[in-house]
Amino acid sequence: MNAEIIAVGSELLTGQHLDTNSLFLTEQLNNLGVEVVTKCVVGDHCERLAASVRAALTRSQILILSGGLGPTEDDVTREAVGLALDRRLNYHPEIAEQLEQRFAQMKRRMAEVNRRQAFIVEGAEVLPNDRGTAPGQWIEERDQIVILLPGPPHELKAMFTRQCVPRLERRVPRAAICTLSMRVTGIPESDLDQLISPAYKKYDNPVTTILAGPGDIQIHLRARCQQESEALVLLAELGGQIQLLLGDRIYSHSGEPLEAVIGELLRKSSATLAVAESCTGGLLGERLTSVAGSSDYFLGGFICYSNRLKTELLGVSEQMLEEFGAVSKEVAEAMAAGARRRTGATYALAVTGVAGPGGGSEQKPVGSVFVGLADASGCQTLHRQFLGDRARIRAFASQMALDMLRRKCTLVV
Amino acid sequence: MNAEIIAVGSELLTGQHLDTNSLFLTEQLNNLGVEVVTKCVVGDHCERLAASVRAALTRSQILILSGGLGPTEDDVTREAVGLALDRRLNYHPEIAEQLEQRFAQMKRRMAEVNRRQAFIVEGAEVLPNDRGTAPGQWIEERDQIVILLPGPPHELKAMFTRQCVPRLERRVPRAAICTLSMRVTGIPESDLDQLISPAYKKYDNPVTTILAGPGDIQIHLRARCQQESEALVLLAELGGQIQLLLGDRIYSHSGEPLEAVIGELLRKSSATLAVAESCTGGLLGERLTSVAGSSDYFLGGFICYSNRLKTELLGVSEQMLEEFGAVSKEVAEAMAAGARRRTGATYALAVTGVAGPGGGSEQKPVGSVFVGLADASGCQTLHRQFLGDRARIRAFASQMALDMLRRKCTLVV
Repeated sequence: MNAEIIAVGSELLTGQHLDTNSLFLTEQLNNLGVEVVTKCVVGDHCERLAASVRAALTRSQILILSGGLGPTEDDVTREAVGLALDRRLNYHPEIAEQLEQRFAQMKRRMAEVNRRQAFIVEGAEVLPNDRGTAPGQWIEERDQIVILLPGPPHELKAMFTRQCVPRLERRVPRAAICTLSMRVTGIPESDLDQLISPAYKKYDNPVTTILAGPGDIQIHLRARCQQESEALVLLAELGGQIQLLLGDRIYSHSGEPLEAVIGELLRKSSATLAVAESCTGGLLGERLTSVAGSSDYFLGGFICYSNRLKTELLGVSEQMLEEFGAVSKEVAEAMAAGARRRTGATYALAVTGVAGPGGGSEQKPVGSVFVGLADASGCQTLHRQFLGDRARIRAFASQMALDMLRRKCTLVV
Repeated sequence: MNAEIIAVGSELLTGQHLDTNSLFLTEQLNNLGVEVVTKCVVGDHCERLAASVRAALTRSQILILSGGLGPTEDDVTREAVGLALDRRLNYHPEIAEQLEQRFAQMKRRMAEVNRRQAFIVEGAEVLPNDRGTAPGQWIEERDQIVILLPGPPHELKAMFTRQCVPRLERRVPRAAICTLSMRVTGIPESDLDQLISPAYKKYDNPVTTILAGPGDIQIHLRARCQQESEALVLLAELGGQIQLLLGDRIYSHSGEPLEAVIGELLRKSSATLAVAESCTGGLLGERLTSVAGSSDYFLGGFICYSNRLKTELLGVSEQMLEEFGAVSKEVAEAMAAGARRRTGATYALAVTGVAGPGGGSEQKPVGSVFVGLADASGCQTLHRQFLGDRARIRAFASQMALDMLRRKCTLVV
């Protein structure tokens, strides 16, 4: 069974705004075994929207529209669907009454325009909305289904999960879609693809998708079968081959980010961590503390953006800074050792580099990054040269530092 | 003149991936005075894509397709456009030759499949790609234009800017689209809308769009006129009214983020800044250092996630931590004062709060955040209670801290 999604709203056709509801809806539909074959964004324009609805219904059994159910004249989804299906809109006084009560509870008078939200496409089932004013609508047209959902994500998600998924489960032929998400670091996307494509190209099912960010590649496998057990066997078959090829460059087999994987490793070995950040300026700490419960192992650290603070807070000698420069193996090492000494953490990670766009030299070009990792046995350093803009280099640098710690912890655990 | 964008690729129909090329393309088209009326994502499916191309050409004068120009069998954009326009694909040996040279430069042998990229829709102009292997194509069909662009954003952007914009400028009737972006903090979206909607609702042109993030609201005004000067007058007219209504809650009139605005203020007054972060764990430092050149005013600071580090690094007394708790006005003040003392910065900002999901109590529920700001005259604190998940509360907390500093600096400058 195939589905299409139409997001309605002129703001989604600007250069600033993306429709993200479709990600949630796609995931939910996939879980039901339904494929999404097209998704569109259409502005607040009744005839254009009606044409898109008609076109979608020539191709797919399920059509979901999000947005355009509000009270103002911009909100044309009801009218457009009525037009496309050649059905009238009927006024439901009981919906208007509920809306009035809702406003009364908030001690506000309902504006007259809100009555527009009480119009329902003839023959539609009303989907009540306990998180907002716009009710949804469920319409069956022969063997096809058209669903109208409100645009605000928390309203859409609740309505779809509670009211649409159970209805769809009764209508969709049984199929199971299972996924496996691996995350990889320390290898460029093109090298990774060359390595694993001979394996995944043998399979139409699972479908393999590769998404690359700075220093972070996600490999998604998606298997679709009649039974969940068959899908899981296929995932294990292809997933196992990919794991053999990539080895310990895979840091997660469940889609978790690197900071969460590290948290687990530190917790298991009852170790603590401190950081000393120069070019990442807090990014490393921010990532580590984005994980709930990170206070169990993360103590804190130092943002030493100026050379003076490297000396005063971490005890990096002025002579060393002068001799080797702030971006050097020696300073990375001294920063890590200093942070460990001052905090008493099991591990201390230090990052220093040239994030750019300024500050590069022939010897230390923009993108040059040193990471130091100190523990009871001493201090190791790594150097890498990254390409890209400031944000990308900082992302690479934080990923490189976290991965160095991961490899260290994996040996210990 | 109207345009449509079709992003091609099955990976864009998963629950993980969004088409972001369309944001760039929309912005570029708007600058030319072209409206984007629909955008779609279609999977790697030749007939389905051909149908979408045909449908788009019944509605719009310009159609841009991105992606699906690669060398593998998945890449069906060339075939689909040929099918939709009823034109043959011709093999261009000179393109194949260039590809072979490109591979030779990288010391690799070109795989046979890459020859697929040398097929060009009959009558199309070839758009050379100096950043990748897939050439683009520019096709004119009566008074309509179809443009095929490669999917990788850095290839697409360079090709469109350098090769398509100049061609479009010659064909598009002159219109000017001007925009004004204001950014606002310290007011909920609904309150803001109630305040300014009476002003912006009087105008169809400029179009007003409001986008809300945690503690950060963007107001975009977009005016479309024949002449740029008319558009600017309209923007000034509505923009001026909105500025009067929102006053100093507007922190930027040019769309810059708060950390960049603060950077300018600090630079102007030759002041320096240090931070002491608990619940934000580095986010404040990360935001401040995301601005190029921030080393001019940002010294660094402390991530004091554990209570022990609050005492050892910042001199917050154990007694105070015990008496008032780490999340308190007193500790925020002591953290800021300690960070200023230890770094010698003009200003020190401290954040302590309960980011959740754990750690809340009846007195200090999840979302409770204290900010301290120390300067030569002493220390001020602010308390706020935010709603949301961990990421949202941390974003709110960092925004609150930066805005407190902005207001302080604005008084000084």
